[in-house]
Amino acid sequence: MNPFLDVPADSGFGLHNLPYGVFSHGDGGARVGVRLGDYVVDLAALETHGLVAAAGAGRAPVFSQPALNAFMALGPDAWSAVRERLQDLLSDSGDPALREGGAVREAAVLPLADVTMHLPARIGDYTDFYSSRQHATNVGTMFRGPENALKPNWLHLPVGYHGRASSVVVSGTDVVRPSGQTRPDDDAPPTFGPSKRLDIELELGFFVGPGNELGDPISISDADRHIFGFVLVNDWSARDIQKWEYVPLGPFLGKSFATSVSPWVVPYEALAPFRVDGEPQDATAGNPEPLPYLRQRGPRALDVDLEVRLQTSSMDEGGEVVAQTTARNLYWSPEQQLAHHTVNGCNARPGDLMASGTISGEDPGSYGSLLEMTWSGKNPLSLPGGETRTFLEDGDRVTITGEARRDGVAVGFGEVTGRVLPPRP
Amino acid sequence: MNPFLDVPADSGFGLHNLPYGVFSHGDGGARVGVRLGDYVVDLAALETHGLVAAAGAGRAPVFSQPALNAFMALGPDAWSAVRERLQDLLSDSGDPALREGGAVREAAVLPLADVTMHLPARIGDYTDFYSSRQHATNVGTMFRGPENALKPNWLHLPVGYHGRASSVVVSGTDVVRPSGQTRPDDDAPPTFGPSKRLDIELELGFFVGPGNELGDPISISDADRHIFGFVLVNDWSARDIQKWEYVPLGPFLGKSFATSVSPWVVPYEALAPFRVDGEPQDATAGNPEPLPYLRQRGPRALDVDLEVRLQTSSMDEGGEVVAQTTARNLYWSPEQQLAHHTVNGCNARPGDLMASGTISGEDPGSYGSLLEMTWSGKNPLSLPGGETRTFLEDGDRVTITGEARRDGVAVGFGEVTGRVLPPRP
Repeated sequence: MNPFLDVPADSGFGLHNLPYGVFSHGDGGARVGVRLGDYVVDLAALETHGLVAAAGAGRAPVFSQPALNAFMALGPDAWSAVRERLQDLLSDSGDPALREGGAVREAAVLPLADVTMHLPARIGDYTDFYSSRQHATNVGTMFRGPENALKPNWLHLPVGYHGRASSVVVSGTDVVRPSGQTRPDDDAPPTFGPSKRLDIELELGFFVGPGNELGDPISISDADRHIFGFVLVNDWSARDIQKWEYVPLGPFLGKSFATSVSPWVVPYEALAPFRVDGEPQDATAGNPEPLPYLRQRGPRALDVDLEVRLQTSSMDEGGEVVAQTTARNLYWSPEQQLAHHTVNGCNARPGDLMASGTISGEDPGSYGSLLEMTWSGKNPLSLPGGETRTFLEDGDRVTITGEARRDGVAVGFGEVTGRVLPPRP
Repeated sequence: MNPFLDVPADSGFGLHNLPYGVFSHGDGGARVGVRLGDYVVDLAALETHGLVAAAGAGRAPVFSQPALNAFMALGPDAWSAVRERLQDLLSDSGDPALREGGAVREAAVLPLADVTMHLPARIGDYTDFYSSRQHATNVGTMFRGPENALKPNWLHLPVGYHGRASSVVVSGTDVVRPSGQTRPDDDAPPTFGPSKRLDIELELGFFVGPGNELGDPISISDADRHIFGFVLVNDWSARDIQKWEYVPLGPFLGKSFATSVSPWVVPYEALAPFRVDGEPQDATAGNPEPLPYLRQRGPRALDVDLEVRLQTSSMDEGGEVVAQTTARNLYWSPEQQLAHHTVNGCNARPGDLMASGTISGEDPGSYGSLLEMTWSGKNPLSLPGGETRTFLEDGDRVTITGEARRDGVAVGFGEVTGRVLPPRP
């Protein structure tokens, strides 16, 4: 299966991937497209020309909208049908309607460099989990000591909390350093000012598909039918604000100033070849078996390589790799997260975003936050040119990339990037 | 100022109130109306007939929509102008266009009993605060003992957390008893099943008006221009689920199965006569003065009487009053909550809901949750007919009502009610 467009054989954006995003081009409105190599194929144009009909012939269009919500709502049968149709239309040996389409090809195939990407969905609710065991252990060790690192509930349920949906932004959006209340000295009153411990969190997120009605949980065996696809997430965090505010109701302003997501949503189906066993959730690994509503059959983890690059204002484009890890380090899977989230009857809606929580591996080079990499600022990172970092400084750019690669098949996530702007005066 | 419709002189729904809501009638779509006595005046009809123009003549209509968001976005000058216009149109001595309007009056004035009420807004984000000192002290005492009841941050900032927006429902919606993971025995593994400690939380909520762009906080002195109006909130809570899950990231599934709001949004302006001094936030009351960004001038509290009624399946309509309290018991004001929420740059959007947290007074008859009324189930409530309650049983109905009354002026909130349905099999 080869694309008719010029796409390098080892590209993570070949016909095996076909991630969806929302883009605009010139004066046109934002609409849905699919990425192939360094091209964007305009699905609104294909829909208008009758080449793709996601909702079935004669139904309302879903791609000429500035969000993927309507397509997400259609569910896995529609997603598979569109994916198959696109693979056919975009290959060098399938339906020639687009390939040899003249005007439609002209209109629908755009260079990636010419488009502006937008948030992929209207996010009704954003939930952040805490599903990497090493991350929870690291944070717990720093805050409470090693003997009390994992709280008693952690191995029994995917701990999570409600995040702020309004401040989820698309990759490329600059992030203003937040100000807030902190208490640097435990024996003095709190003070107000710009955060001094601005951090990142490397996460993998997913968008919900059809979702459920209030009162009707999604079972673990049905959960895969409700996961549309995946993005990279940087859940920016102000550790000093978070530390002072978070007891007893959890993170709030230490997080809600910005959460960045990558623009291309990698379809759930595209990641099927990268499913692998996770850490066993049973006595063979010394872990408690989850309650039945969380017991998942088959491979639970995703073999996606993840990388964090930090580029200070004095560095060249690209910056320095400061962490390399993998989504295999997640103990709780997306399916388990969704089954847990709805087991009380809570309704999930198309376009809801759920993120994994920071993903950290066992060695310090695989930690997904500066809090962990510098062990709460005690061990500064050494960067080229003699620079060091504990937390982020103004002008720093953080870029997270992701790619799954196996048996000659590559699926890229692209990147989520953002630069720190100085605090508002 | 007397209404031309038949409204009792002591009604909380006279021309001083004029709350907004979203209703439907017969086969018509949901649209915005205003309540006057036991009538609903259809603002979409008034807008269509040119009697009201919220956004200015010739602008897009805001009332023929199934949510108040567009009107909320217009800001306080537009709200005041519409309110004044409605008071004129609805009085027995003002503009006769509606009063003597024949067909328009016939179309626009509907009996309250004939309409169905809907959620007043599309809620982008829902935030729940924890602003009643007595409630925080009660809960802290039960969980951590009296010497450690209020956490060190509580008197310095309005503690809050992100709630779940998808499961906010309008008054009258039944609530399915949630199931979930709990650990009744600290020395045994957790178990799964219907919550055994289903509770209510009596709260006052507000809807955000224009809101702010990401990165640009709303100052405490501007906050009043961003508060559209108030509703009653019942933040249903499953205490057993909450207890097991909430450390360290806060309440999640113990809350997200349902949050009920009253359908009529009482305008911010209508409550101006009921502003009163709150507990002093300075040394005169032994309290720390807040940081400048939280210092509010003028009266901070709202003199709104609140009542909780519990009706078991064996009781007559109306049930038994189990709590009476007042919104004066809130230490942190809506303006302070909004200034705090956005001080880190977090953006608030039209239609966002922010609730006060449980409102409790000093004596047990004024506690806003069963957790407090029964002191964690230790002191069951005695109800008529020999019934008792620690937490809610299936078939129980909870109704919260609110009213502000002073110097012959009354402003009613109506009610938020809901009945507990048995857990799904």
